[in-house]
Amino acid sequence: MYKIGIDLGGTNIKAGIVDASYHIIDEASVKTLAHRPYMEVIDDMANLVLSLIQKNNIPMEDIEGVGIGSPGLIDAANGIVAYSNNFNWENVPLCKELETRLQKRTAISNDANCAALGEQKAGAAKDCKNVIMITLGTGVGGGIIIDGHIFEGGHAGGAELGHTMLIANGEPCTCGRKGCIEAYVSATALIRDTKRAATKNPSSVIHTLCNHNLDNINGKTVFDAALQNDATALTVKDNYISYLGEAICDYINVFRPDVVLLSGGVCNQGEALTQPLNEYIKSRCFGTDKAFIPPVRIATLGNHAGTIGAAALLE
Amino acid sequence: MYKIGIDLGGTNIKAGIVDASYHIIDEASVKTLAHRPYMEVIDDMANLVLSLIQKNNIPMEDIEGVGIGSPGLIDAANGIVAYSNNFNWENVPLCKELETRLQKRTAISNDANCAALGEQKAGAAKDCKNVIMITLGTGVGGGIIIDGHIFEGGHAGGAELGHTMLIANGEPCTCGRKGCIEAYVSATALIRDTKRAATKNPSSVIHTLCNHNLDNINGKTVFDAALQNDATALTVKDNYISYLGEAICDYINVFRPDVVLLSGGVCNQGEALTQPLNEYIKSRCFGTDKAFIPPVRIATLGNHAGTIGAAALLE
Repeated sequence: MYKIGIDLGGTNIKAGIVDASYHIIDEASVKTLAHRPYMEVIDDMANLVLSLIQKNNIPMEDIEGVGIGSPGLIDAANGIVAYSNNFNWENVPLCKELETRLQKRTAISNDANCAALGEQKAGAAKDCKNVIMITLGTGVGGGIIIDGHIFEGGHAGGAELGHTMLIANGEPCTCGRKGCIEAYVSATALIRDTKRAATKNPSSVIHTLCNHNLDNINGKTVFDAALQNDATALTVKDNYISYLGEAICDYINVFRPDVVLLSGGVCNQGEALTQPLNEYIKSRCFGTDKAFIPPVRIATLGNHAGTIGAAALLE
Repeated sequence: MYKIGIDLGGTNIKAGIVDASYHIIDEASVKTLAHRPYMEVIDDMANLVLSLIQKNNIPMEDIEGVGIGSPGLIDAANGIVAYSNNFNWENVPLCKELETRLQKRTAISNDANCAALGEQKAGAAKDCKNVIMITLGTGVGGGIIIDGHIFEGGHAGGAELGHTMLIANGEPCTCGRKGCIEAYVSATALIRDTKRAATKNPSSVIHTLCNHNLDNINGKTVFDAALQNDATALTVKDNYISYLGEAICDYINVFRPDVVLLSGGVCNQGEALTQPLNEYIKSRCFGTDKAFIPPVRIATLGNHAGTIGAAALLE
């Protein structure tokens, strides 16, 4: 038996056939063209799934169902995208529409939740039952796995770990508040802080690394500059570790999981990121040495986490 | 059938006989004398329970078991007080010792968790399955109820809602970090901020209300002064509402519960507290009007919440 995982993104719809061992045996994608009427997007999702199944010569009765990871505010219990800013969707009955087209059981969750579930089933947390995963991208997505299952919150709009306070009245956040974790630890925030620091410090090596055009700065620049012992970069990097370290302590104090996973482009830094974070949280989590302090690890499945996790929703 | 709930406090051990409708039919207490060897404290707990049962002429076979709410870091799965600063206890096998003495099933959880469970079974949240409760006392305790059950976290030291960041590098917190929610919304913090503001503003009515002795300031002072339109008090009060409002938004964004309950002395303010809080969070929770925003209510069971919740641990 196989399951289909769909990773519905703002740019592409990706679908994968996932086997019982959580391997993706084949995958395909089409453009989302998100601002069309939602029925057209759902038509394309269904057609993508059908063509992928046909291409692999899998009988429809061997497909258990279809799981979907979607951005936005998801009402998982009712299979509805309650609200998606990316798609300009409101109360779209995605599961029902896809069931009608495919005659298969469906399930849905937020894309960050699916990525966390994928890592728990087959990635960096596969030895763990309780997992917090933070995706450090344009924004900050959070996935909470309790006892092997996604925790959605009691109503749509829970598990938004990036939208808890780090510095009240601080940097503006995309959610409308000021000072959320997202506003300090997203890749966007790291790039903002690198640019600001470079602007204030004309002699920083950051200027050389970005060819004297601050628009070339990305989430890697500050780490590269720090490797050259650039004082400006070291300060930005240390601040970033502190922000992220405080955020991780918060998640540990609330969920006390088996492991905290990080994903997103910034995580290409690997141990340069996890080593100082593991050190930082050691003395700061509630209870310090009297309580279990979970390790911080980098997620390993990359873009496949969402597809695998979406398929695993059907369990 | 009856259950026994024990509220183990730093000053008193309280025990109550709880019936199937979550009414306390009788209760009793003794001094904790916390710094004795733990076996002596447990002896007193057992004797308190036995004398209470005898006094009420209840046959031992009508007692289902004994639930305990304890301060500190609790390993609920193993029935152990992993660490309690108040008692100077470390890895005390409280459930096992009490079972030996009483020959009854036991269960344990953190006292703040028990209070939340009590309110969910019989108090201000009895119509709700998913509840966050915050106790605003000397410190800030948090209780998380998911689907009618306490959420402890994956390991001892979870559900510490007071120890998540509000203003990184801000006020020192009892946990060792700087800027936790507890350091801004506990009664202790409110009193600190009232004293500071009064010191800076010699003409504030706060001075009159505390008889010109700042040590007389308590968690009520600033609300009383605000009722007299004292500008200093209004600022302290507004800041307090903002701090607490931001904390509540954080809890909603992560748990999206059916209700957020507040307890502790500050809550005697009733609607003067909940009305501005409900207003504050409306525009700030993630998703604002696209998502369900739970009401903020005052807990109703007072000191009985812990006893009832401890008994309910046995379900």
